[in-house]
Amino acid sequence: MAKSVNTRVLPGFMELLPEEQIEFDRIKAIIETEYQKFGFTALDTPAIERSETLLAKAGGETEKQIYRFTKGENDLSLRFDLTVPLARYVADHFDKLSFPFRRCHIAKVYRGESPQKGRFREFYQCDIDVIGKDELSIAYDAEIPSVIYNIFTKLNFGKFTIRVNNRKILNGLMAQLGLSEISVDVMRIIDKVEKISPEDFDWCLHDLGVTDEQIGVLRQFIGISGSNKDILAQLRQLGITEPLFLTGVDELEAVITLMGAMGIKPGYFTIDLSIARGLDYYTGTVYETKLDDYPKLGSICSGGRFDNLASYYTKEKLPGVGISIGLTRLFYQLRELNLIPCSRKTIADVIIVPLDQKAEALAVAARLRAADFRVDVLLEDCSTKKKFQYVSKKDVPVTVVIGDQEVAEKRYTVQTKLADGTIPKKQLSLTELLEKLKKLKGRA
Amino acid sequence: MAKSVNTRVLPGFMELLPEEQIEFDRIKAIIETEYQKFGFTALDTPAIERSETLLAKAGGETEKQIYRFTKGENDLSLRFDLTVPLARYVADHFDKLSFPFRRCHIAKVYRGESPQKGRFREFYQCDIDVIGKDELSIAYDAEIPSVIYNIFTKLNFGKFTIRVNNRKILNGLMAQLGLSEISVDVMRIIDKVEKISPEDFDWCLHDLGVTDEQIGVLRQFIGISGSNKDILAQLRQLGITEPLFLTGVDELEAVITLMGAMGIKPGYFTIDLSIARGLDYYTGTVYETKLDDYPKLGSICSGGRFDNLASYYTKEKLPGVGISIGLTRLFYQLRELNLIPCSRKTIADVIIVPLDQKAEALAVAARLRAADFRVDVLLEDCSTKKKFQYVSKKDVPVTVVIGDQEVAEKRYTVQTKLADGTIPKKQLSLTELLEKLKKLKGRA
Repeated sequence: MAKSVNTRVLPGFMELLPEEQIEFDRIKAIIETEYQKFGFTALDTPAIERSETLLAKAGGETEKQIYRFTKGENDLSLRFDLTVPLARYVADHFDKLSFPFRRCHIAKVYRGESPQKGRFREFYQCDIDVIGKDELSIAYDAEIPSVIYNIFTKLNFGKFTIRVNNRKILNGLMAQLGLSEISVDVMRIIDKVEKISPEDFDWCLHDLGVTDEQIGVLRQFIGISGSNKDILAQLRQLGITEPLFLTGVDELEAVITLMGAMGIKPGYFTIDLSIARGLDYYTGTVYETKLDDYPKLGSICSGGRFDNLASYYTKEKLPGVGISIGLTRLFYQLRELNLIPCSRKTIADVIIVPLDQKAEALAVAARLRAADFRVDVLLEDCSTKKKFQYVSKKDVPVTVVIGDQEVAEKRYTVQTKLADGTIPKKQLSLTELLEKLKKLKGRA
Repeated sequence: MAKSVNTRVLPGFMELLPEEQIEFDRIKAIIETEYQKFGFTALDTPAIERSETLLAKAGGETEKQIYRFTKGENDLSLRFDLTVPLARYVADHFDKLSFPFRRCHIAKVYRGESPQKGRFREFYQCDIDVIGKDELSIAYDAEIPSVIYNIFTKLNFGKFTIRVNNRKILNGLMAQLGLSEISVDVMRIIDKVEKISPEDFDWCLHDLGVTDEQIGVLRQFIGISGSNKDILAQLRQLGITEPLFLTGVDELEAVITLMGAMGIKPGYFTIDLSIARGLDYYTGTVYETKLDDYPKLGSICSGGRFDNLASYYTKEKLPGVGISIGLTRLFYQLRELNLIPCSRKTIADVIIVPLDQKAEALAVAARLRAADFRVDVLLEDCSTKKKFQYVSKKDVPVTVVIGDQEVAEKRYTVQTKLADGTIPKKQLSLTELLEKLKKLKGRA
């Protein structure tokens, strides 16, 4: 049949070649493993939800972007994030969960945005949240950056900085200045302070009715700098009496102090009073994470504290704190920067190439797999030349060749690819081969 | 806000509690790990595809069940299996892949079936396939059952049997009998031989115009029994001269012989000439797997050989062989049979409970996590009684209690839940605690 059907992946959807997928999955596994080390247990919710449920809170952009459809009598949508499904889940299963409830969710979400470079319509979010019942200790806010620290240390994309702030400080400042009613708008502008010019900053605030005097206080506040200790001291010296502000400073201090206790190296975290995290969703601690060498990427891991997860679904008060990593976008960006080399086209540790002796090759493979190694066997009936072309394309560390002599002597020809590019050959027994593989994998 | 939004999961969708999800994920991880041990590299394709692509081949039931919708100008659908996306993927990326191409894909697919017990509208499929270019050695057909064997041995759901057949044998028989034109229909009935009465079997075949004489030959053929060797001998003694039949017998013999070489225990696989795998998709070897103690479950892992993966998308000839495990349904069925006990509500190996000493608790947790243990810390400011209620609900093997004395002496109170239900207490230093955890996890 002729090739008439369009087989290209849809615009705005990421589809990777095997060598890229291996790296993507490696990164995803590191994130998941580190999440689990903090006791965050994986959850899975349907990608399809009732539209009324997903859109209970949302509006505007979300509603425009959502993939919505009917099936039978049901008005359905694909989830656009993992937070709304979490809220529904916790509300629905409330009596069967124990709190504080730690959950991890790594899955695809869907947003029908206009396609543009680096924006995806289907993308992985990697979320963790701790949800409390009625209350949740501020100490949890300190644990979250420790997760970020462990993940990005393991991922090894270079030096990074976790920036921490507390929305209560800004909100308290707004209350003190009498700007509470427009605080969300003011904070949205403060959030952009690094991205827009000083003139635009003033202009945006004037536009909201903020006076020059008030802008002066805001600038003085934003200008606070120095070590974490200095910043906390300067905040306390501003003379602000608003209780919300003071609570915010206390919480920020508690978080920063505990972060030190958890072993996060001093250069890797800092108070950044300019962070407001756009959304009015967050109510206390907020986080952003930036790669020091690639500031243009923006925040690669963000999150914060919220007062009430599921107010649209339940009367229970469910405060929480969490973070999210937008993995698909991050992977795309890091690939663009050549920070993720992809060469191996298979996850196999070993390729076995029988010249003709398939039964022996399969038996050896079975023994290696029983020892937890990943083994590809080339069973194709093709020329030896073609067999080695296959091997060299796959870029696997160890190749085992089995011919008549190998079968007779029970010693196999083992080629190992070394870091310097050489590929020495040795004749090894099965036991010796297993020992060698264990050493290569750091298991002996 | 009142609870007015419907938070229940949609009918036909599986949503698990944490203690169930932990077991589901454990099973999924075993399947994935075993797939990878055979060199099957994970792929990921979008859940959304062009409707024209997904429906190029499909029709009938598939078209009715598919979740289809428009977004902008695009006519889109959710995938209903992982094979069609694989065909599209291989056709699209053909020049960048090397063959034989081994891929593993574990992901959700969608079918808007009428809801009924044990049928799901969103479910995980766990697929592997080896795809050849132009040709693919029959030896790959022998490797696939070895994957099944390893998986169900590890999963430990009791004794199972892998049943193997070859469609060419049946098709060759049909040719010999002059029934080729209605062979798909005849084979569909043969596939049901265990499920329907002898009278219904005859009636169904008569209805297709099959004569009593022909039914006699079919029955003689289906009645072949004995050891794998006996069956092969009896097939060769039927006196059938049709080349397709003889090729089928040769292939089946090759597969069975190599399966033995791979270490599959004799009682775990058998030739079963009654298997035809309904679909006309398969053209050679076919597999089914049944739990011996639960025959009513039907086949829990099926698959086979196909001549051409992607004829709707490319002119390249792409033969392949693969299997699929319908994990969501399998999990549901095994839970119904009480074969999957679920007790642990967290993946944590350890819970640390500071009575008040959070910084110390977080520091100890950081040390245990650095040694790759999964650690929950209860940071809530509640009564000691409530803290221990939390611990007992979570059912974690090891609990570490940290109070003033523990901080002063740097020896922590460690409670370990033993198999006999007792929970002995010990005072351990951090080093001793690490040693103990390593022993418990079988790492020392």
